[in-house]
Amino acid sequence: MDIKQYLKIRRSRVDAALHKYMLAEQGSLAVHIKAMGYSLYAGGKRVRPILCLAAAEAVHDNADSLPEAIMVAACALECIHAYSLIHDDLPAMDDDQLRRGKPTNHMVFGEAGAILAGDGLLTFAFELLSTPGRHTPSAEERLRIISIISKAAGPVGMVGGQFLDLENEGKDVEFATLRDIHSRKTGALITASIQAGAILGNGSAEQYDALSTYGERVGLAFQIVDDLLNVEGTREQLGKAAGSDAARRKATYPALFGVEETRKKAKTAVHEAVAALDEFDDRAAPLRELAKYIFTRKR
Amino acid sequence: MDIKQYLKIRRSRVDAALHKYMLAEQGSLAVHIKAMGYSLYAGGKRVRPILCLAAAEAVHDNADSLPEAIMVAACALECIHAYSLIHDDLPAMDDDQLRRGKPTNHMVFGEAGAILAGDGLLTFAFELLSTPGRHTPSAEERLRIISIISKAAGPVGMVGGQFLDLENEGKDVEFATLRDIHSRKTGALITASIQAGAILGNGSAEQYDALSTYGERVGLAFQIVDDLLNVEGTREQLGKAAGSDAARRKATYPALFGVEETRKKAKTAVHEAVAALDEFDDRAAPLRELAKYIFTRKR
Repeated sequence: MDIKQYLKIRRSRVDAALHKYMLAEQGSLAVHIKAMGYSLYAGGKRVRPILCLAAAEAVHDNADSLPEAIMVAACALECIHAYSLIHDDLPAMDDDQLRRGKPTNHMVFGEAGAILAGDGLLTFAFELLSTPGRHTPSAEERLRIISIISKAAGPVGMVGGQFLDLENEGKDVEFATLRDIHSRKTGALITASIQAGAILGNGSAEQYDALSTYGERVGLAFQIVDDLLNVEGTREQLGKAAGSDAARRKATYPALFGVEETRKKAKTAVHEAVAALDEFDDRAAPLRELAKYIFTRKR
Repeated sequence: MDIKQYLKIRRSRVDAALHKYMLAEQGSLAVHIKAMGYSLYAGGKRVRPILCLAAAEAVHDNADSLPEAIMVAACALECIHAYSLIHDDLPAMDDDQLRRGKPTNHMVFGEAGAILAGDGLLTFAFELLSTPGRHTPSAEERLRIISIISKAAGPVGMVGGQFLDLENEGKDVEFATLRDIHSRKTGALITASIQAGAILGNGSAEQYDALSTYGERVGLAFQIVDDLLNVEGTREQLGKAAGSDAARRKATYPALFGVEETRKKAKTAVHEAVAALDEFDDRAAPLRELAKYIFTRKR
């Protein structure tokens, strides 16, 4: 299969769905909603939504007619991801001025505007996940997904990971701490994305467990490659300042293990992710290719 | 009935429940969880949780054995309220240094810590609302509550209200704008609190509608009185800087109508709130007294 083509198609479907489900710019709130859209439509890779969709495809009887609720959940996951980037970029946090080749949200809408755009996107994600109508899954399944996603995005998940990341800046961290930061900050929401797809695609308990393992490994690979790109990538490739982790003395894999060993670790994680899908048939081909693609990506 | 005694008892029940359901301070995340607790346990009035409980009591068959889910929802509402105060107080927003007589969250935990404490509380609220177990209401009812609360707290509700509030600082605003800001910033979540109680207390559709009207009117009264207190209260009574609205030229009722006319408007809103409960029996006595109490409160 052509993974690049697959990603391109999925990305455009996700982009179209985001426009469909997001709030329309309206009256006095137009600027606020524009601020949310500025980051949401900034041309991200849509990793989380695509993983959610691919996980559903891997277990669903008919990949051509997935329930609409899967795309809604995929959009909610992207809203949460977009919010996390807006808040991470704030002056009080990572103080980044460039993201995906564009000025960061607070550079355009001011700090207050960016904080509120993030708050709005996070809250809107739960509106998407809970709003009645258009959903075939049972209320129990939808509640379960809200539970999984809120936990993954919350104080012991993504938010906690960002807290630990900031707290350990400039410190010599041990491997256990680095792994803890990564698994919370990036791994948790990626795993939740895949779990949401598994549940909404009507996967079995065994498939759910295997996909959870896949998600953990892929999440790890993704973060390790992110660390590598920050060392090796150029500003043009990344769409943001390169080498910024080192400048801030952030805990990263390359800082701890060097580039070669880090590359090996990423490779191992990808292998383990693919191995978790041993019992799956061809419907899991996109997930397998996605794991490998993560290793070769340039941004 | 003795409303002060009622409030005291409900407040201590809510406080106990918050401690029970909140995350325990743990390992590397201890400071993050402490930052959330710092604002959550800061001795708020617990208006939203108490309104949620009182609405459930007004419609439930047995007020002495309310489903535990009502207290869980009440705690989630307080988490959302606490997050909104933390973010509103940030230097980029209202830049407040004092809240409930204590230094604001960012004065203690830094800006990044406060932003993340808010993000954590908001996300945790949805974890509380969705986590399985301990809940007797149906999944459908719980989803409906998540939908109502996320909408009320989100971009067209509370977050949007804060956006409009900041955007109109220092401007001469019309009454329509002022009302729009208030209804989004304060009214929406107060109404949602009462609606959640009505649903979880098994109220009828008619009771739900009447309680929604009550909520809108009480929310309005609450905000008008807040405006009045900001003009008339002392720093000691408020636990925060008095006169700060005027100093920032914020849109307020007293600025637009003067103190006397504003007082009349608050009284009217209270009367309308109580009138909405005409068809209710004595179980609605706390709601009636609460509406009147709002008018006499000093902080």
